[in-house]
Amino acid sequence: MGIHTYFQSLNDLERIIRCPGKFKFEEHSVSAHSWKVVQYAKTLADIEESNGVTIDWKKLYEITSSHDYGEIFIGDIKTPVKHSSLELRGMLQQVEEGMIALFIEENIPEEFKPIFFRQLREGKDETVEGRILEVADKLDQIYEAFAELRKGNTEKEFVVMYRSAIIKIKGIRLHCVDYFLERILPDMVSEGSNSPIDIASITNEALAT
Amino acid sequence: MGIHTYFQSLNDLERIIRCPGKFKFEEHSVSAHSWKVVQYAKTLADIEESNGVTIDWKKLYEITSSHDYGEIFIGDIKTPVKHSSLELRGMLQQVEEGMIALFIEENIPEEFKPIFFRQLREGKDETVEGRILEVADKLDQIYEAFAELRKGNTEKEFVVMYRSAIIKIKGIRLHCVDYFLERILPDMVSEGSNSPIDIASITNEALAT
Amino acid sequence: MGIHTYFQSLNDLERIIRCPGKFKFEEHSVSAHSWKVVQYAKTLADIEESNGVTIDWKKLYEITSSHDYGEIFIGDIKTPVKHSSLELRGMLQQVEEGMIALFIEENIPEEFKPIFFRQLREGKDETVEGRILEVADKLDQIYEAFAELRKGNTEKEFVVMYRSAIIKIKGIRLHCVDYFLERILPDMVSEGSNSPIDIASITNEALAT
Amino acid sequence: MGIHTYFQSLNDLERIIRCPGKFKFEEHSVSAHSWKVVQYAKTLADIEESNGVTIDWKKLYEITSSHDYGEIFIGDIKTPVKHSSLELRGMLQQVEEGMIALFIEENIPEEFKPIFFRQLREGKDETVEGRILEVADKLDQIYEAFAELRKGNTEKEFVVMYRSAIIKIKGIRLHCVDYFLERILPDMVSEGSNSPIDIASITNEALAT
Amino acid sequence: MGIHTYFQSLNDLERIIRCPGKFKFEEHSVSAHSWKVVQYAKTLADIEESNGVTIDWKKLYEITSSHDYGEIFIGDIKTPVKHSSLELRGMLQQVEEGMIALFIEENIPEEFKPIFFRQLREGKDETVEGRILEVADKLDQIYEAFAELRKGNTEKEFVVMYRSAIIKIKGIRLHCVDYFLERILPDMVSEGSNSPIDIASITNEALAT
Amino acid sequence: MGIHTYFQSLNDLERIIRCPGKFKFEEHSVSAHSWKVVQYAKTLADIEESNGVTIDWKKLYEITSSHDYGEIFIGDIKTPVKHSSLELRGMLQQVEEGMIALFIEENIPEEFKPIFFRQLREGKDETVEGRILEVADKLDQIYEAFAELRKGNTEKEFVVMYRSAIIKIKGIRLHCVDYFLERILPDMVSEGSNSPIDIASITNEALAT
Repeated sequence: MGIHTYFQSLNDLERIIRCPGKFKFEEHSVSAHSWKVVQYAKTLADIEESNGVTIDWKKLYEITSSHDYGEIFIGDIKTPVKHSSLELRGMLQQVEEGMIALFIEENIPEEFKPIFFRQLREGKDETVEGRILEVADKLDQIYEAFAELRKGNTEKEFVVMYRSAIIKIKGIRLHCVDYFLERILPDMVSEGSNSPIDIASITNEALAT
Repeated sequence: MGIHTYFQSLNDLERIIRCPGKFKFEEHSVSAHSWKVVQYAKTLADIEESNGVTIDWKKLYEITSSHDYGEIFIGDIKTPVKHSSLELRGMLQQVEEGMIALFIEENIPEEFKPIFFRQLREGKDETVEGRILEVADKLDQIYEAFAELRKGNTEKEFVVMYRSAIIKIKGIRLHCVDYFLERILPDMVSEGSNSPIDIASITNEALAT
Repeated sequence: MGIHTYFQSLNDLERIIRCPGKFKFEEHSVSAHSWKVVQYAKTLADIEESNGVTIDWKKLYEITSSHDYGEIFIGDIKTPVKHSSLELRGMLQQVEEGMIALFIEENIPEEFKPIFFRQLREGKDETVEGRILEVADKLDQIYEAFAELRKGNTEKEFVVMYRSAIIKIKGIRLHCVDYFLERILPDMVSEGSNSPIDIASITNEALAT
Repeated sequence: MGIHTYFQSLNDLERIIRCPGKFKFEEHSVSAHSWKVVQYAKTLADIEESNGVTIDWKKLYEITSSHDYGEIFIGDIKTPVKHSSLELRGMLQQVEEGMIALFIEENIPEEFKPIFFRQLREGKDETVEGRILEVADKLDQIYEAFAELRKGNTEKEFVVMYRSAIIKIKGIRLHCVDYFLERILPDMVSEGSNSPIDIASITNEALAT
Repeated sequence: MGIHTYFQSLNDLERIIRCPGKFKFEEHSVSAHSWKVVQYAKTLADIEESNGVTIDWKKLYEITSSHDYGEIFIGDIKTPVKHSSLELRGMLQQVEEGMIALFIEENIPEEFKPIFFRQLREGKDETVEGRILEVADKLDQIYEAFAELRKGNTEKEFVVMYRSAIIKIKGIRLHCVDYFLERILPDMVSEGSNSPIDIASITNEALAT
Repeated sequence: MGIHTYFQSLNDLERIIRCPGKFKFEEHSVSAHSWKVVQYAKTLADIEESNGVTIDWKKLYEITSSHDYGEIFIGDIKTPVKHSSLELRGMLQQVEEGMIALFIEENIPEEFKPIFFRQLREGKDETVEGRILEVADKLDQIYEAFAELRKGNTEKEFVVMYRSAIIKIKGIRLHCVDYFLERILPDMVSEGSNSPIDIASITNEALAT
């Protein structure tokens, strides 16, 4: 009980491996993913600021660093399961939120409860910070899938991951999305040009969708 | 498409690790777990037969070997999630069955579809074979948790796993359950007597529940 | 001593890695292999039944699930060693059988000894179940080798494994062998067509041998 | 070249293992450590704020998330080496800064160079954010060492790590340090009371130093 | 073919894990074991020299560094198998030597063949160098088993390994054996005094055998 | 204290992984590397002897087997760091030597101190044995990098490692260097001819430098 329980629980996320089941050349823990999301989001927010957008850095810090904390309680449920129906998705989110709430009630001292309730809420809302988090989360999906495709991993799952993340990102209205599409993605595609998998075609098809 | 797709998919279960997140001295794949369940069930059924019970070996073979195949599609969702509400549990089972059905429809040749639908159904029914599967599945939970407790793993999760599996098993009416409680469990407890964790007390408390 | 010792020993096979020494993109435990053999054998037997052959499911269950149990005692001795001379092969098999017999004598309760002696015997005899086990065991060798070849593993060992398993299988008279050669193998070869290694040629050469 | 190179480089920190050489029950990547430092710092800053201290969240975000980025270039050099002489420490820091500067010059687009120079600087200065980072970094050292001591790891290195981090933290003037010493550390010590190693004594000795 | 094939083959020994099957807190490759044997043998030979014994360093170098090279061909066959009968042991050694001879014939250039035949022979003969190799090899068995016992590993196999290696060593007449028994083993036992396993008793019993 | 401490410390090198950070298909411990260097050096010295050169085998044994022992104290510092300035390199070497000297002073019995000071010194001097060690060390760098390039690893680091080791080796005047360039390297390049990376061009460019 107490903040100690919370601090110690963070360790569990280093033992949850993303995308379980499929063959991967590189495995990634939820902790490492979370850290990369924090890093991407920082640069994406810098791009917004350089375009005159105001960033609430405290909020961005809170929602990016904690965005997958709930996986301690529910695990890394496969995306197709989560998305199989709106009803199931809602119910899973409700269970996750219920477990987080129970954890806060049982472990967090009274004076910090409001802070934890705010921090461990779902962060992907319509604010600029919420949208940056969404882009950063998908960006790591792109980097993880790209690293597999580039090494010739033929599991279809990684094409799906790469493609669906591009489609999701390009639909979000942010300056940093433009920057990603114009300045980052072309470098990535060019680097992957000697892969046995035709990354350029997959990318172009996704962009044209 | 075809039986090849099915055979190849089996490989994925070697990459799904049971009980993700918690610290473990030994990790177990769903494949290895499945094999141990097949082995336990065989001996449990031998015990039933030696008590005059008739076993449908074909059915037992089918339901034990395939009992976690659905995890290829939904992953190893944490038990508390599955059991958080009857409604969610039902919905997750429905999604799993839907994904298995879709897999069969898309990949299995027409003449084998009925066989696969039968084999990949939920096997834990009220028949003697279904109850043996339930015992065998919980037995592996006991062995996995026992191996951690015996080495001094202080994660509470393993006490919960060990204890709840004993409680579940002792409520099932089978000759092999009596045999387990009288002849196997005492050997296990005796072997764990030099553990830093008091396995005997946990066991006795669970048996008295 | 008792069934507990036997159940606990099963765990050891998860720590014996197949094909030690050679570079592999994917490692496989003997447990996971054993489970896949159980699964293949089930479908192979279904194919036999659909062709009117009678299957003794209890026997098939026993011999497939336990077929590599002896590796707990002798380890995964390299195939070329086993096959270097008929005399050595016989002697190793004798040692393995002696160790299994000693294990049964020392650990298994009197009333189950006959059952364990029957179950842990060498199962690859001339019955239909024995031949199905032989096919299922080689099939996993094919799948393990194929997964390496497809990813561009240039170790010669995997070509040898793949090729020799095909040659072995095609010499076994079973309906399921015909099915494998006509309906499963072509799907596999087609899937491996974009591998840097010419899997189609290796396959055709093996089939023509 | 470009932000892509920077984003991709983040991945390397998941492959650098902390405290190489010594036996550990749990291994930690620099990525996972970095994420935990981000999380601890957030709560530590919340404690400061609740005591009326103003936090520059953007700065805290920048310095905590990037604080070990330089290990991509120099690796995880053992602490005794770094601290063997002030001169060597200074020289190593200079090399690290030089490599970071070169990386920025060669890869980061002109308009973001000032931002990256600011973010990738050494963050442990005398500001409140710099001191929070120092505490958060040492806190993870405590949690990593504690997890080993609690499991009975007898390598002296972990006693040294645990003890020196406590001594370092208690010398830093922050409200969150008081909170840690009064509300978090006692919970930790109490949880470790059944360890074969006398964590309470080590803790008390360190606190009295 | 050529020395390249030989050099490259050395890599395979890093993928063969010693003592497969049993639970271990630490795994050791045959490469790492081989290097430690080289290191121990060097110091053991220094002890002999300091007692006036003449060492053939070239021979010692050759036999220690190559003593497990044959495992590339036959794997790490479990000790009880090797020792189950003198006949089997002889036959396995013959197969190993045959495979090494074939490897040399097929790969090593004519002018180096005599050198390789000499280097890759069984080195544990009655010369002082052969006996030092025997001690060094058993010493690593002691260190590997000790590291497990000290951490509380309750697998009986490690008691057997530790005990049988002490008994073997104490029967070899060398100055370095006296040194080991009088100056090294007591330090080891003293270090293991806080283990849950009574290492002192096991040691004393073995010494008294 | 005593030789026991030294023998036990050898184990730590099995846990230090070479080339940390970069993606690798195969990981190598410093122990395994050290053993391969011992093996290469033996054959390189055989080549020298067959050309009439006298080898001090005791010295060669001592310097090759211990050449990376110092990494226990300082870790595997990245090459660019070590080579960033002559001054830093000198200072790091001084720290390493100081730590080794301290270890000897504190742990090694008086009568063996001179032997250990001689053995654990930097061995890469201008004698024939020192030059053989240099070649053997770089040879393993070549083999490690080659294994990655051959599998299509596109990390630039491995091209740099492969290329710089060839350039270093060809500048050393030894008969075994001629043998390597004329008889071993061509076999290697030929074996790598079906790699997605043009190993022949990289090799030729390095040889022409």
